[in-house]
Amino acid sequence: MTALTTRDLEVLDSDSTTRTTVVRPGMCGPGSLFVGQIGDWTWDTVSALCGTNVYTARDGGGAPTYLAFYYYHVRASPGFHVRGLTFGDMLRVDSRVFGFGSESVLTLHEIRRGGPARRVDPDEFYAHPDPECLYAQNFNRWVARGASGGNEDLRSASPADFRHEHLPVLPAEYSPRRAYNEIRSLGALSPPADERARLTVDYPVDVTRDLNGVGLLYFAAYFSIVDWALLRLWRHRGGTDTGFLDRIVLDQKVCYLGNADAGTVLRVELSHQSGGELPDADETVRAVLADRTTGRLIAVAVQQVKTGVAG
Amino acid sequence: MTALTTRDLEVLDSDSTTRTTVVRPGMCGPGSLFVGQIGDWTWDTVSALCGTNVYTARDGGGAPTYLAFYYYHVRASPGFHVRGLTFGDMLRVDSRVFGFGSESVLTLHEIRRGGPARRVDPDEFYAHPDPECLYAQNFNRWVARGASGGNEDLRSASPADFRHEHLPVLPAEYSPRRAYNEIRSLGALSPPADERARLTVDYPVDVTRDLNGVGLLYFAAYFSIVDWALLRLWRHRGGTDTGFLDRIVLDQKVCYLGNADAGTVLRVELSHQSGGELPDADETVRAVLADRTTGRLIAVAVQQVKTGVAG
Repeated sequence: MTALTTRDLEVLDSDSTTRTTVVRPGMCGPGSLFVGQIGDWTWDTVSALCGTNVYTARDGGGAPTYLAFYYYHVRASPGFHVRGLTFGDMLRVDSRVFGFGSESVLTLHEIRRGGPARRVDPDEFYAHPDPECLYAQNFNRWVARGASGGNEDLRSASPADFRHEHLPVLPAEYSPRRAYNEIRSLGALSPPADERARLTVDYPVDVTRDLNGVGLLYFAAYFSIVDWALLRLWRHRGGTDTGFLDRIVLDQKVCYLGNADAGTVLRVELSHQSGGELPDADETVRAVLADRTTGRLIAVAVQQVKTGVAG
Repeated sequence: MTALTTRDLEVLDSDSTTRTTVVRPGMCGPGSLFVGQIGDWTWDTVSALCGTNVYTARDGGGAPTYLAFYYYHVRASPGFHVRGLTFGDMLRVDSRVFGFGSESVLTLHEIRRGGPARRVDPDEFYAHPDPECLYAQNFNRWVARGASGGNEDLRSASPADFRHEHLPVLPAEYSPRRAYNEIRSLGALSPPADERARLTVDYPVDVTRDLNGVGLLYFAAYFSIVDWALLRLWRHRGGTDTGFLDRIVLDQKVCYLGNADAGTVLRVELSHQSGGELPDADETVRAVLADRTTGRLIAVAVQQVKTGVAG
């Protein structure tokens, strides 16, 4: 037998877990499989530490509750980034959960190519000092379906057995709510004047790809829809598909503002600006997703990208 | 700590493995995540039993070799089928590998909701007697990239450390080659005369969704592309998207005939006929994928479906 030296989730202490895994076809590539995988790690970690099985959680009234994604941030580096992962890469994932009351929870993941397990330190996490580490932050909220039963009518709900009092408190300066509000506010910015730096595209929610196992728009599909739209902006600016694949996404943030039913057409407003906050970023691109019919905001996403192409 | 009572891959003997797992968002829903997950289980099982780490395998010359999908069959039942899986379902997966020389390998998976591990018996497997079991068959071939380096130029190649001599031989009547050739021959059939029973659609390979971590067209993406096209046939016949989601796919077979580069436009010829070999099937639908430019065949897929709608 060939040992794939992987290790299932291991609890380090009351707020931390670690695991070692091998990258499989189902968790890499230019699509959204790896961000989907990180999301599953969040659910695994919260399940291991917070008294409830996230996959089958129910509120006090017996209704299914979902640990929905609210803010998702991945920080990479030119040498170690999501689309650089390939079959057989060994990854060590250290995870730590922070308390935000009964209705929300924050999970920080540090993903490295190996080395000993360690507890995530928030000061270090938010300084992102290690170019050999992928930093992923998931801020989640418990929701349940509302009276209509549709995807546009989700309400807060907490599982009866969700334990959070033992979790550490995140230093206020790192608040995901603040980051969320900053990204969200980008959705209200005017588009750039330069026609080459903006584009509007419509995306019909695809029932063959975008829904999850409970019929909601899948959190990882938001990344796919954003990339689908950004490819159109890239082409609009004269780029090739090969050039798009060669981009390195150094930093991506998604704010989830709403869900949507099958049949919804999303209007995606895209914009581009040169450079970014990160020294390696050649461009910053933004996508604002709204329901085309009602104008209801669905998501705001921002990526800082190393394109290898000047401005 | 909440125990998610899962168990990593366990080797039962020289040709069999078992595992228990919980269904996560990253492995269910109406997309192709679950068929992608089954494929990863195939790679895990072959890695555990055949002396080579499939994820990092190389041939004698040091070139990366991939255990490519060649024929993929999933048999379900109205009560237990792929799209019926949801968050938190517990699955037990029993797997067995059969030898086909140095260049191919067959893996059979029996997926149930629980119970004790068992060794897969081929006579029973191909009789598909248990409505509470999902039967999945993966026939894989070792390939490497050819001289051009492109996706259309793959050649046979076997990892230097691949051990197969110890594997059992499948009874000849169950030959996946025979099944493959049967499905493949459907690609040459004339389309039905009735205009409502056929449709041709073009699908450009999507670089944001369809490629895997080594830049090949991902085997699970073939399922997504087929479903994308079948949704168009369904609408063409007057069906709604909700009705499409409510379909139960009882049996699906995909023959992989070629790979394709980013930028390829696939021409998909679709056809429908009422009923099917299975008593519960209301319709049988077929998709033939070819490179629109060269006519080169890429895949043939057939599904038997319970639609709840008369023929």
